[in-house]
Amino acid sequence: MNSETICALATAPGGALGIIRVSGSQSLEILSRIFFKNLADAQPNTIHYGHIVESDAVSQHQNIIDEVMVSVFRAPHSYTGEDSAEISCHGSRYILNKVLELLIQNGCRMAQPGEYTQRAFLNGKMDLSQAEAVADLIASGNKATHQIAISQLRGNFSSELSRLREQLLKLTSLLELELDFSDHEDLEFADRSELLDIANKINKRITYLAHSFETGQALKSGIPVAIVGKTNVGKSTLLNKLLRDDRAIVSSVHGTTRDTVEDVIDIQGVTFRFIDTAGIRQTTDEVEQIGISRTYAAIDKARIVLWLIDAEPTAEEIKDMLERSKGKSLIIIQNKIDIQSPVDSSIFSLSSQLVPSKNPQPSIFNLQYSILNISAKQGTNIDRLEKTIFESANITELSEQDIIVTSARQYHSLLSAQENLSRVLSSLESGLSGDLVSEDLRLVLDDLANITGQNRILADEVLRNIFTHFCVGK
Amino acid sequence: MNSETICALATAPGGALGIIRVSGSQSLEILSRIFFKNLADAQPNTIHYGHIVESDAVSQHQNIIDEVMVSVFRAPHSYTGEDSAEISCHGSRYILNKVLELLIQNGCRMAQPGEYTQRAFLNGKMDLSQAEAVADLIASGNKATHQIAISQLRGNFSSELSRLREQLLKLTSLLELELDFSDHEDLEFADRSELLDIANKINKRITYLAHSFETGQALKSGIPVAIVGKTNVGKSTLLNKLLRDDRAIVSSVHGTTRDTVEDVIDIQGVTFRFIDTAGIRQTTDEVEQIGISRTYAAIDKARIVLWLIDAEPTAEEIKDMLERSKGKSLIIIQNKIDIQSPVDSSIFSLSSQLVPSKNPQPSIFNLQYSILNISAKQGTNIDRLEKTIFESANITELSEQDIIVTSARQYHSLLSAQENLSRVLSSLESGLSGDLVSEDLRLVLDDLANITGQNRILADEVLRNIFTHFCVGK
Repeated sequence: MNSETICALATAPGGALGIIRVSGSQSLEILSRIFFKNLADAQPNTIHYGHIVESDAVSQHQNIIDEVMVSVFRAPHSYTGEDSAEISCHGSRYILNKVLELLIQNGCRMAQPGEYTQRAFLNGKMDLSQAEAVADLIASGNKATHQIAISQLRGNFSSELSRLREQLLKLTSLLELELDFSDHEDLEFADRSELLDIANKINKRITYLAHSFETGQALKSGIPVAIVGKTNVGKSTLLNKLLRDDRAIVSSVHGTTRDTVEDVIDIQGVTFRFIDTAGIRQTTDEVEQIGISRTYAAIDKARIVLWLIDAEPTAEEIKDMLERSKGKSLIIIQNKIDIQSPVDSSIFSLSSQLVPSKNPQPSIFNLQYSILNISAKQGTNIDRLEKTIFESANITELSEQDIIVTSARQYHSLLSAQENLSRVLSSLESGLSGDLVSEDLRLVLDDLANITGQNRILADEVLRNIFTHFCVGK
Repeated sequence: MNSETICALATAPGGALGIIRVSGSQSLEILSRIFFKNLADAQPNTIHYGHIVESDAVSQHQNIIDEVMVSVFRAPHSYTGEDSAEISCHGSRYILNKVLELLIQNGCRMAQPGEYTQRAFLNGKMDLSQAEAVADLIASGNKATHQIAISQLRGNFSSELSRLREQLLKLTSLLELELDFSDHEDLEFADRSELLDIANKINKRITYLAHSFETGQALKSGIPVAIVGKTNVGKSTLLNKLLRDDRAIVSSVHGTTRDTVEDVIDIQGVTFRFIDTAGIRQTTDEVEQIGISRTYAAIDKARIVLWLIDAEPTAEEIKDMLERSKGKSLIIIQNKIDIQSPVDSSIFSLSSQLVPSKNPQPSIFNLQYSILNISAKQGTNIDRLEKTIFESANITELSEQDIIVTSARQYHSLLSAQENLSRVLSSLESGLSGDLVSEDLRLVLDDLANITGQNRILADEVLRNIFTHFCVGK
C-alpha cells in the first residue's frame, strides 16, 4: 500500500459545494490536525460536522476557514481501498484552495490525475479495464456511451475476459496432456479437432471484441455525418433545424449546463457529429457545384451522408453520388416539399449495384440508401429524418450486457491476441508440436491479462499513460 | 415545514464527482425508490453505497445509472432542518441529468436558487443575515471577503444586533416606567439624561455598522485603483508587472482554476481593481496629455491613484494632480529609476493643504500621498509599491470579530434605523412624551429585526429577492 496520503478537489470549481478527497493511511490523522474534532476513532461511513481551522503561528489564534461535513471511510471499504475522507466545503475558490493548502502543510501531497483510481486498481478494488471505464463514465454524455462505460465498470468485460482465459487454460492443459502422453505410443493423443474447435470459438469471440472497437469509437466521438448538396438547396437551414431541435431538448434538462459542443446532435442517446459544417454554412452564398473537393472530403470522413436535393438530379449526378457513398449510409433528402412536388424516387433505384451486403461482424455501418421528403424551413418530416439517421447508424439498443471496446489500449491488446491466436490455429492445423503451440497460447493469455492488468508487471509508463487521461480528483 | 421535497445539483458540472442534494420530508422515501437499498430506516449522518437504477416500464428491466454514495441526514440535524440526502455521483452530465430526472419522476421538484438556505432560514437553522452570508461565503475570492462572510455566517453580526436589541428594549422599558409613574407626582421620573446616554450609544454603534458598508462594498468588488501619467511613462508596463506578479502567485495554487478576472490583483488578501486600464493600454502609443478627460474620469472613480512620472512635473501639474486626487490616496511613482535619477521629492510637499484628516469612522480611504521610486521594467521596488497600495487602502487586518456590512438590504435597514433613532434622540432631547418616543423606538427595533428576519412577517418578495441571488443547489 502506498504510504503517501494524497488530496485533491474532486468537483469542478464554481458550485455551491466543493468536495475535497483525502486518501492514504494518514488521512484521518492529517485531517484531525485541521478539523475541530479528532477523527482518529471515527466509525467508517459516518459523517461529521465541524470546522476547518488554520492556526496562526504567531498569534496562536485559530482562524475558521469553513464549516464543513467530513465523510469518513476505512480501508479496505473505500474507493481507493485505503483510509480516506471527503470534505464537503462551501464552493468558494478561496476556501477550497485554503483547505488544500492546509492539508498539504500537514503532510498530504496533491494527487496526480487519476491517482485515486490508480490506487483502487493497485489495491485490488477493480481491474484495469474497470479503471478505464471510470474515466469513460465521467466523460459519457449520452445514453450509449454511458451504458458501455457502466457495463464495463460493473465488470462485464472483465467476466468475458475471464471466461476466455478459462478456455485458453483448458486448451493449454489439453495440450500438456497430449505432451505428457506423447511418449506412450499405446495411448491415444488428445483429439486435435477438439482443440481446434475450442481455439476457433475463442478466436471468434476475440475477433468480435476487437471489431466492436469501431462501434465504440464512433459512439464515443460521435457518428460522423455529412450534409451535401448544391448551393441554396437548404443545407444550413436543415443543419440549424437539426441542431436547434436538439438544443431545445437538451436545455429542458434540469439544472445543469451542457458542454457547448458545436454541430453535434443526440438521437435516442447516440451522438451524431456533422462534419465540416462550418464550411457548409460559410459557402451557402457562393456559387458552387456539387463536385467541389470539400464536399468530397466531407463524404470521405462520413459514415452517413445526407444528400439534400430540391430538384431532380441528373443520371450522372446520381451515379456520382452513389459511387462516392459506397460503404456509407446514404440518405437522399428532397427538401422544400412545401413549395415543390417530390421527384420520382424510382430514378435512384437504377443503381442496384449498391444493395447492402450484410456484415456478419457487429458493425454499425452498412451500405444502403433511403429517400425522404422534407421541408427544412417548415420542419416537415424532420422527426422522420432523425429516425432515419438513427436507423442508418444501425445500432440496436445496447443492453447492459453488451460489450463494446472503447479503449485503444484494450483494442491493441485484442489485436495482438488475435495475431498470436492465429498462429495457434495454424500450428494446430498443421500438426505442430504441442509445446510450440503452448508458447503462443501463453502469449494470448498475456495479451488478455494486459487488458485487465492482471499480470501486475505492467510498466509504470503504461499505468501513467492510462491515468494521466483522468481528471485530478478521480 | 414545507411539504415539497426538492432536488438540485449542488456542485458545478464537469468534475470527477457531482453531488445532488435532496431535501424534504419525503427525501428518503423518494430516494429509496431509485436506490437499490431502502433508506427509510437509515441512521442519521451515515453513508450508504449502492446503485441508482431506472426501471424500464415496458421490460421491467432495471438499468443501472450509477454506483453512488448516499449521505443521509435527519431533521432537525441537517442543513435545511429537514430530512435530506446527498447523492455523490460520477460527474458525468448524462448521469447527473438522469438522476435528477428520476428524482423528479418519483416526486421531487427542482429546487429554486437558494431554496435549501431559504428552508434553513424558515426552519430556524439560521437568521437572514447568516443566510446572506452563505452566498457571500461561496462568492468570496480572497481572505478579506472570506473573513467577513464567515464571521457573519458564524453569527457575529447577529449577536451584535441582538445586543442592540437588548439596549433598545431596555430603553423602551425605562420609557414605560416613566409613563407608568407619570401620574404619581410624588415619584421621580426616569432620568432622561440616562435615556439619552443609552440612545446615543446605540446610535453610535448603528452609525458605525452603516458606515462599514462602504468598506464592505469596496472589499467585495475590489478597491478601485487608477494608474495615470503621461504617454510612454510606463503605465502599461507597470500594470502588466503588477498583474503578472499576481497571476504567478495565483497559478501556483493547487488544483483549482481561477476565475479569469482581468486587471484585478490580490494584495495580502484584498482585491484591487484597476479602472479603465484597457483604455490605458490602448492609448499608450498615442500622444496624449495628462489633462485628457479619460484620465480624469479614471481618477474620479478611483480610491487610490497611482501617478506615474519619469521626469520632474511642473508646479502646475503637481497642483492639478493634488487637487484632482482630493479624498483619495495618491501614490506618486517615479518610474525608470534604472536609467534616470530620482526627482527631488520636496517639490511635492509644497501642497501641504492635503495633510490627511483622520476619520473616526472605519473608512478604508484617507487623504494622503506617498512617493516611490521604481523600475517597472526591471521590477525594482514593485513589492514596495504593492505594500504601499495595500497600506493606502488603510485596512487593518480584519479579525474574525470585525463586523462589516456587505449587503445593500442590510445597509438600507441600518439607514432606516439611523433615521428613526435620530427622531428618538431629538424627542428625548426636546422632552417629548414617552409614548411618542416609544413609537419611534419600535420602528428601530423593526429595522433591526428586518436584518435578521426575526419578525417573520417578511414579504415573500423580500425573501425571493434575497434567495434568487443564490446559486441553485445551495
